[in-house]
Amino acid sequence: MRDINQFTITEAVKASFKAEEGSRFRFLLDNLIQHLHDYTRETNLTHEEWMRVLTFLYDCGKISTPDRHEFILLSDVLGWSALVDMINTRGGATENSNLGPFYLDDAPRKPLGADLAGSREGVTVLCHGVVRDTLKHPIAGAIVDTWQADGSGTYPIQEAGQDKYDLRGVFETDAEGRYYYTTVLPKPYTVPYDGPVGELLRAGSRHAWRAAHLHYMIRAERMRSIVTEVFFENTEYIDNDAVFGVRKSLIARIEPYKPDLVADLPLERRPDAMIKFDFTLAPGD
Amino acid sequence: MRDINQFTITEAVKASFKAEEGSRFRFLLDNLIQHLHDYTRETNLTHEEWMRVLTFLYDCGKISTPDRHEFILLSDVLGWSALVDMINTRGGATENSNLGPFYLDDAPRKPLGADLAGSREGVTVLCHGVVRDTLKHPIAGAIVDTWQADGSGTYPIQEAGQDKYDLRGVFETDAEGRYYYTTVLPKPYTVPYDGPVGELLRAGSRHAWRAAHLHYMIRAERMRSIVTEVFFENTEYIDNDAVFGVRKSLIARIEPYKPDLVADLPLERRPDAMIKFDFTLAPGD
Repeated sequence: MRDINQFTITEAVKASFKAEEGSRFRFLLDNLIQHLHDYTRETNLTHEEWMRVLTFLYDCGKISTPDRHEFILLSDVLGWSALVDMINTRGGATENSNLGPFYLDDAPRKPLGADLAGSREGVTVLCHGVVRDTLKHPIAGAIVDTWQADGSGTYPIQEAGQDKYDLRGVFETDAEGRYYYTTVLPKPYTVPYDGPVGELLRAGSRHAWRAAHLHYMIRAERMRSIVTEVFFENTEYIDNDAVFGVRKSLIARIEPYKPDLVADLPLERRPDAMIKFDFTLAPGD
Repeated sequence: MRDINQFTITEAVKASFKAEEGSRFRFLLDNLIQHLHDYTRETNLTHEEWMRVLTFLYDCGKISTPDRHEFILLSDVLGWSALVDMINTRGGATENSNLGPFYLDDAPRKPLGADLAGSREGVTVLCHGVVRDTLKHPIAGAIVDTWQADGSGTYPIQEAGQDKYDLRGVFETDAEGRYYYTTVLPKPYTVPYDGPVGELLRAGSRHAWRAAHLHYMIRAERMRSIVTEVFFENTEYIDNDAVFGVRKSLIARIEPYKPDLVADLPLERRPDAMIKFDFTLAPGD
């Protein structure tokens, strides 16, 4: 190894790891080393630039807490999270989109037709649709787990004195695969930009705004779960979402509420508007 | 941007940064995004693997302190630090090698011939040589800043109750470009392996040992500084240093002390052995 130079070092580093030949770990590690080294050679990275990267990572670590994961945020603004979502979308299934930092795995079960908005300000909306498999068959008993920001772009979990389970609901689809509930239309909000990732955005003259969206995690027995977001036509930042979460197939239309069209859906409240969005799940592995 | 898919997202992310066209920042960022995305597509990275990487970085951040920079350690064991050292070595100059975590920028000035070993156990050695420019001319007044582990592989700065400036010295070369001092021969030691990087080493069945070495930072007016390490022939880990610091050109031979050969070097103590190593500096930018 004393003969290594800037071209042979890459294979020497790979060989230093004795991970099993052909294993996934070895494949991931070898490729990582190759890309890291190629990047460094291609850019002729200086010591100062190298140290700037390491200091950036150190600073991301320092600002991170269990509730503030700066590395996920970094992944988000570099489109890495979105790319992983895209790669892992199964053919025919609804496209994946960002999980984000606000998911809770113990949100309350609610009956179909329930209202999540309560007395919150904003446009109330009926969210409804059908969960199907890739053969277009409705899935009864699918779980529709949703969470969202309010009419001012804030998640209740972000505000002291609010119930963190507000604006969340876990619904089970009926025999026809349908889900339906009313809520308040969420507004856009910014990702946290007071840390190193915010500095990066400023250095690149980028904004921190996310297009307004509803979060969904959809699960059903023997099906592959999806995590996705539903966006709204003609709303702000829909074409320059800070975390690249928007996909054409995930944009819903907000229509005026027409009771006649959904007369068979018993609702707790009468909303101002309505949104129809169907989800498709692919078979599990 | 709503039309992005796993192939077009890379250009969309690049375009989201409005950094100046042709700037170094844009070049570094564009290349980083390209490699990150290529890696992800080539490996078909799963959500679980992506999250494992982010959790690893989070954990590196949590264990890091101003005195324990886990990201530098990560860079070291992936050969990234060594590669940056190699890329930034100037033609004809002594090869760069790891700065490591123990450099202090306010170590004491000492006169040529001083002894750093004091009463420490181990083999005492005369370190001497000439600092030259790439035209082979000796450089008078060059600064030779050295630091090292002791005869048991420990830096004084690592041990409570020890003087952190021990086993350090800043020397100025004489009119003939010479430096000379006595010290104790350092022993191998391990990089810290009680954190996430240690886990990575274990997962890859790698050891954490560094070959024994002396650290040097060499500076002179109008010359480009170098940071490097001097290793010793036929010592342990010389062919599998954990951070890829060894280069053939940086390996010195330990010879028995022969006073006749260095009669013109006034020394504070008579050592057991001697090492000759010459440094070459390239012109500054």
